[in-house]
Amino acid sequence: MIGRLNHVAIAVPDLGAATSLYRDTLGAKVSAPVDQPEHGVTTVFIELPNTKIELLGQLGDGSPIARFLERNPDGGIHHICYEVDDILAARDRLTVAGARVLGPGEPRIGAHGKPVLFLHPKDFNGTLVELEQA
Amino acid sequence: MIGRLNHVAIAVPDLGAATSLYRDTLGAKVSAPVDQPEHGVTTVFIELPNTKIELLGQLGDGSPIARFLERNPDGGIHHICYEVDDILAARDRLTVAGARVLGPGEPRIGAHGKPVLFLHPKDFNGTLVELEQA
Repeated sequence: MIGRLNHVAIAVPDLGAATSLYRDTLGAKVSAPVDQPEHGVTTVFIELPNTKIELLGQLGDGSPIARFLERNPDGGIHHICYEVDDILAARDRLTVAGARVLGPGEPRIGAHGKPVLFLHPKDFNGTLVELEQA
Repeated sequence: MIGRLNHVAIAVPDLGAATSLYRDTLGAKVSAPVDQPEHGVTTVFIELPNTKIELLGQLGDGSPIARFLERNPDGGIHHICYEVDDILAARDRLTVAGARVLGPGEPRIGAHGKPVLFLHPKDFNGTLVELEQA
């Protein structure tokens, strides 16, 4: 069912410093920052040959990564995103298997303009999993 | 400098249950478990079309993931591994930039039979980074 690893998301306390770290120190190709006010984050993509790293900076007070950054002041890996062909079929298969979908259970449009769902970390080895319809 | 994302490693408390979750619930292609006594872990690889997830189970008492699993009893993302062409050149560039290499600073042979180094999470946004010579 799951396909490609779409991205690994890393929440960071200082997006400019993290961008410089990946661009200058690690020598990676780095996108310009994009504010995503509807998601409460600013994103920078690190473009690797086979997948992406998504750096997440806090945007605004109600950012969904605010609590994570309180608990992890240096930052840390926030979630991983797997692609699926059919997000509703994936959701139904997972809920039948007992996995919990976060929120109301309906896909919403994610930071890439595609339908996404998040799965409960307790059901996936402490890992917050995003599914994105490819 | 960094190239492909070689793998994302997830430490898990129950490798059999985690393997079943990825194979049966998430429908992914899963390798047989391999004990790596020199690394204190048993590994299972989830083979995605573009990269791998490495499930890490504890092997023996002195496992390097034992403390991580004490702090994260459900498991969690343990590290990410980037490929580099020349691990000694990468190390030298990183140390000049002020990043700390864990351990004695010389590459050792990792779970894939290739030279690897680990970088201090405090220097990489709370993320334990492995570099593997591709």
